[in-house]
Amino acid sequence: MNAELGLSDQEIPSGSALDKSELETPCLLIDTEVMERNIASMADTARRLGVALRPHAKTHKLPSVARLQLEAGASGITVAKVSEAEVMAAHGIRSIFIAYPLVTPGKIRRALALHEQAELILAVDSLEGAVRLSEAAVTHGGAPLAVRLEIDTGLRRTGVPYDDAPALAEKIAAMPGLSLTGIYTFRGALLDGAPTLDLAAAGKQEGRLMADLAQRLREAGVPVADVSVGSTPTAAFAAAVPGVTEIRPGTYVYQDRMQARLGVCSLDDCAGRVRVTVVSRPAPDLAIIDGGSKTFATDVQPNTAPLLLQGFGWSTELPDAVLERLTEEHGMLRLGPDAQASGLAVGDVLHLVPNHICSTVNLHNQVWFRGTDGRYTPQPVLARGMLE
Amino acid sequence: MNAELGLSDQEIPSGSALDKSELETPCLLIDTEVMERNIASMADTARRLGVALRPHAKTHKLPSVARLQLEAGASGITVAKVSEAEVMAAHGIRSIFIAYPLVTPGKIRRALALHEQAELILAVDSLEGAVRLSEAAVTHGGAPLAVRLEIDTGLRRTGVPYDDAPALAEKIAAMPGLSLTGIYTFRGALLDGAPTLDLAAAGKQEGRLMADLAQRLREAGVPVADVSVGSTPTAAFAAAVPGVTEIRPGTYVYQDRMQARLGVCSLDDCAGRVRVTVVSRPAPDLAIIDGGSKTFATDVQPNTAPLLLQGFGWSTELPDAVLERLTEEHGMLRLGPDAQASGLAVGDVLHLVPNHICSTVNLHNQVWFRGTDGRYTPQPVLARGMLE
Repeated sequence: MNAELGLSDQEIPSGSALDKSELETPCLLIDTEVMERNIASMADTARRLGVALRPHAKTHKLPSVARLQLEAGASGITVAKVSEAEVMAAHGIRSIFIAYPLVTPGKIRRALALHEQAELILAVDSLEGAVRLSEAAVTHGGAPLAVRLEIDTGLRRTGVPYDDAPALAEKIAAMPGLSLTGIYTFRGALLDGAPTLDLAAAGKQEGRLMADLAQRLREAGVPVADVSVGSTPTAAFAAAVPGVTEIRPGTYVYQDRMQARLGVCSLDDCAGRVRVTVVSRPAPDLAIIDGGSKTFATDVQPNTAPLLLQGFGWSTELPDAVLERLTEEHGMLRLGPDAQASGLAVGDVLHLVPNHICSTVNLHNQVWFRGTDGRYTPQPVLARGMLE
Repeated sequence: MNAELGLSDQEIPSGSALDKSELETPCLLIDTEVMERNIASMADTARRLGVALRPHAKTHKLPSVARLQLEAGASGITVAKVSEAEVMAAHGIRSIFIAYPLVTPGKIRRALALHEQAELILAVDSLEGAVRLSEAAVTHGGAPLAVRLEIDTGLRRTGVPYDDAPALAEKIAAMPGLSLTGIYTFRGALLDGAPTLDLAAAGKQEGRLMADLAQRLREAGVPVADVSVGSTPTAAFAAAVPGVTEIRPGTYVYQDRMQARLGVCSLDDCAGRVRVTVVSRPAPDLAIIDGGSKTFATDVQPNTAPLLLQGFGWSTELPDAVLERLTEEHGMLRLGPDAQASGLAVGDVLHLVPNHICSTVNLHNQVWFRGTDGRYTPQPVLARGMLE
């Protein structure tokens, strides 16, 4: 397993490979074969559509998995934090896009230091932010900092408003110390500003908005090369739009219940399973498992449109059980007729596909990779919990 | 600061005390004075009402803070996991109640090992669980394991159903290797099975249910001594019921927005603040901060009855701003008229009281304690992310 993932010494914990029955719960298991299939599949998509693939590492938070993505053809990786970039660079990842506006002196200083040992691309979305980066880069000296301008294409979070982008891009392009190499956006599954299940339309709209904008910028004399788009649900559709040059999906590496519900994958493509134990059976229709909100992420809530997921995760063994409520250490599993008839007892073990794998990984200090021998090896999630 | 908290060497990180302006964001700040006031206040309540105080360490997850609680008069601490108990015991905490049913051989084995170096109390809530504990304790030998029976008083998670308790208690009391020393419940702010803002009525009902049950058990020949109840909102009210012997509040140590909304405390009593930086100002009514769902817990959702909290946290500087949406690294702050008039700009720093401090602490690898000199010292959250 370690050899399979090409782990460095620092990445291997003291724990040795265990049989599944020996694993303490709750824990997060990754089916390595499924993960590798997902990695290959997205790499194929990018190759077929002629775009670069720069996966967001927020899903796995592991240099070892980033290396597998690079070996499969990714041109580099994406992260959100300087601290994540530092971990990745320290473990041999060369090309890193920090897709988040860095505006504080401390973070900018760390990015400039990292710039000397890795191929870094930074993000800007405001004049103030760009001025800060430019001044710091000039003071620091050395090669200009590659930056991409983030565009808001409807999600209303970071990103310069779409129509304000040309004016800002012209100003950034003229700033010393910076080299404006591209534009990027993150939108997810959104159509005309609203969540949608129509991924083809969403991805096409996303790609067109960005390709059109890139063209406008070039006509205005700003020679942007990279037009970077795409989340896991929209990547394939956005990448098919002429003018798009790069996709940055993250979740695809493990997939999750949300993606399965979106139709991106099947539940069998979900490489991550939370293994839990039934600790109490206080009523015929209720089982309590030893995973609560410290184990399952709560950022993707049940019964929210358009996904309308039931519960916080889906049990592969008990399809009609709903993980209805969570407190920190307890999961309340409401049992349907089949689950009630299953004879589920205290001590039984279940495996659940979490709603959102990225934020679930962030809750786990380690994940367990299934080796070809069927045994599980723990890896510390090195870039977990990085907030700076 | 370190001397103030009586830290052991292992608990002190390499980072030295920093001025507030030097802190990288997002980060979690603890006002040490406010925390100490909260610790003293709950200790006074327990003393005044003649009950033992056994705080749940799930809020702070720090041996150093547990020691402060013990010094203020707590009789021991409560945790949910064997791994948390191991961390606490390794840092000198002697009396630990693991208020969670341990049903797997591995966890029971670890608890029995820990039992030799700390005064451990375990929890049971089912016949199967009790049999497993009893058999393991007999095999292991040594002093009997003190256990408490968990009672479901309406929350419908772990806990034997109320009316089934006497029969189960009699069986457990007769098991070799175990000493049934008490009963306990966790209910939170619940009245007649439903969430409530009437804490006095909720606490009184909780206390009465448990005191009555203890009396029934004693009449049936099961000599339970400890009658343990109480969350932060109900502790003072439940403790006033004759027959209750112990309270186990957790949140009170730092307090949070949820408790302030419940009327337990004021926002000024909340010792925890998430410090964030504005990274983007894409529209007059929108500011993006560098804390999202990796920084603010999402288990207590906005607009949920009966709390009806607006947003995922409350900014002390901008009272009419609502932290309306979160993605992993982005917080979308909708600005009201006053906040819009404030001139909020990229790079500005804000401090937010999180909805739920316990789960927010769990997201932070370290917290920063404010010393009497106004500088901040980081402490690694040693029992953070403990799932086993």
